[in-house]
Formats: sequence, C-alpha cells, structure tokens
Amino acid sequence: MPFSRISLLAGHSPAYLGALTNALDRALVGSFQVPPHDRFVAVHQHAPGELVFDRHYRGGPRSDQYVLFHITTGKPRSAATKAAFFRRLVDELEHAPGIPAQDVMVVIAESGWEDWSFGGGLSAADDRGAAP
Amino acid sequence: MPFSRISLLAGHSPAYLGALTNALDRALVGSFQVPPHDRFVAVHQHAPGELVFDRHYRGGPRSDQYVLFHITTGKPRSAATKAAFFRRLVDELEHAPGIPAQDVMVVIAESGWEDWSFGGGLSAADDRGAAP
Amino acid sequence: MPFSRISLLAGHSPAYLGALTNALDRALVGSFQVPPHDRFVAVHQHAPGELVFDRHYRGGPRSDQYVLFHITTGKPRSAATKAAFFRRLVDELEHAPGIPAQDVMVVIAESGWEDWSFGGGLSAADDRGAAP
Repeated sequence: MPFSRISLLAGHSPAYLGALTNALDRALVGSFQVPPHDRFVAVHQHAPGELVFDRHYRGGPRSDQYVLFHITTGKPRSAATKAAFFRRLVDELEHAPGIPAQDVMVVIAESGWEDWSFGGGLSAADDRGAAP
Repeated sequence: MPFSRISLLAGHSPAYLGALTNALDRALVGSFQVPPHDRFVAVHQHAPGELVFDRHYRGGPRSDQYVLFHITTGKPRSAATKAAFFRRLVDELEHAPGIPAQDVMVVIAESGWEDWSFGGGLSAADDRGAAP
Repeated sequence: MPFSRISLLAGHSPAYLGALTNALDRALVGSFQVPPHDRFVAVHQHAPGELVFDRHYRGGPRSDQYVLFHITTGKPRSAATKAAFFRRLVDELEHAPGIPAQDVMVVIAESGWEDWSFGGGLSAADDRGAAP
C-alpha cells in the first residue's frame, strides 16, 4: 500500500533504478509487513540545479548518490517501526545498488485505507476483506 | 483546492493529457463539490524504469495505461464521499481519454485551509470569506 | 526539516532556480525558524501541457511564471505562523528572482519527527538531541 516517490540526480541506468526499487521493496516487506507484490513507485530524476540538498546538515557527508524517499503509507505505524524501517532501508541500499548510508534520506506521509483506490473505482477500505 | 499530481508513462499527447485532467476535474466537481475553476495539476511523465507498478496486486491487470493520481485536498471528506469520487473518476476516464478502470490508482492526502495559499501571500484560511 | 517540491514551467536557467530556492530558504529560516543549512528541495520542470493552473481562481491573474511550492514539514505550526510564511515567501520571491506575488501558490503537508531520517538509517526523533 505504500506509494513511494524517489528523487535522485539524473543519469542512472535502468539496472541501478531496479536495484533501488528492489531494496526499497525488501525494506517495506521486512519492516512494514507490506505484501511482496504491493509495489508502486515513481522515480524522479533531476538535473543538478533541480535537486538541492545540504551536504552536512544533521548527517552526511552527502554525495551525488543522494537519494530521497518520500513514502505515503496507508496506515499509521509506531516510531519504533519507522526507525527499524530506516535502518533496514540503508542496509539494503548499501548492499545493492551500493549507496552510502549517509546519502539516504526518508520522509514518510501517513494516510488511511479510505484514501486509497487500487483500481476499478473501488475504495481500499471497502475492498479490505478481498485483499490477497 | 485540491492539488493533484498525476504520474504515468511518458509519450502521451497534449490532447491525451488534456482529456485526463478534464476527467479529473469533472470527478472533483461532481463528487467533492470543488468549484469548476479550482484546477491545479502537475503531470509527471516517466520513462519505463521510473514508474513501477505491480500488474496484479489488489486489482488489475494493469497495463501501460496505468495512471496514479496523488491528490492533496484542503479539507477532510468522509470515506463514502471518497469512494464516490473513486467511482466517478474511473467512469470519466473510461469515457475520455479511454483508460480501463483497472489502470486507475488514487491516493488522497488531506490538509487544512490554513495550509494553502493561492497567491498574493494570502492564507486561504484568512481569504475564506472572499472566495468566489 | 522541511522538504519542498517546486513545480514550474520548464525552461528556467540554473541561476533562476538558485534564486528561487534561496528565496524559499530565507522564508523558511525567517518564518518557520528552520536552521539555515536545513535545505532539501526537488524542482520539477513541466512542459506546458503538464502544468495546469487556473489563471484567475481565488487570486491571479497567474502568468507563465506560476510556481507551486509543496512543502512537507516535520512538525505542526499555527495558522498565524503559516500565514506569516506565505507573506514572507512572496516578498522574497518578488525581490529575487522577481516573481509576481499572484503567481506564488503554496501547499503545506505536516508530518512528525519520527517520519524523518536525514541519513545513516537514523530516525530524526532519536537523533533530536544531536541536532546541530
């Protein structure tokens, strides 16, 4: 149910983007108990002047591998569960495609089941029992 | 007052995009009682590797006509009103530009009047009485 | 802590975009008490058919300099503080890069500290005491 936007500098190969979304998927499944096929991601590749990030604020040093995950979830989760997800995500990304932990930034936005339709004009809230 | 982001695969004509935003507008006016001229939309066209969507999770089969609406509203609405909007939106999109119902995904994010400025540095909350 | 998406029509120079994000930064520091180095922005440049905005709804007339700021913050702020930010932002943008006040639209989305990780897999909520 999460929908994730990923922003990074332009110029990455499809293989890199594939590894990026695979890592995100493993972290969501592992830490948020998201079903394995619940994969919905939009990647935004930016020209250098279009992606602004401080290299040192509250972490860093950030490099040109900086990536921002903006994730909208379908239900609230505890601070501890979110913290576990952050740790898991950087572990997965360090493994593949090989992104330094300090380059990984995340922002989570919460919403409710009734805010989602997966298709067919059906509310996810009404469709809850029918979920695979 | 809604602001909508629409993500879809790249390569669509201006006419297709125009029909897409017209359909969204009719659904917002019809189901959310949004004023007819309250139209603010950003379309993001993605290369194939940039838009990831499972073809079968909780619906489908999704095709390359898959489109995701990410809609920020200015006030809360009931689950029933949202469900009616989902139904209306797929009806409009099937009519024009001709998108199968199973390709239409929606995520709603709620905010308040005080979170909006339509211009001039004026808060929509302060400007409420002056609204046309 | 805010993360801002800026949507505008394509074709702007890096200098214009730099002035735009500088103006945003000054308004966030001045009105939201954001630390000076807390700068995280993604700019989305759109083809004409991809950016839809009514020229006259609740303000205007809007021109092709129309710019939409979609700002996710890390804590709630009062309606008065948000209103002060809206005023400050248009003042800064009129000064540089020279955007008419009626072309500046803003939408704020709130979240909490526990929804943020600035890097290293660390939750901003856990890292609060260590913030510079």
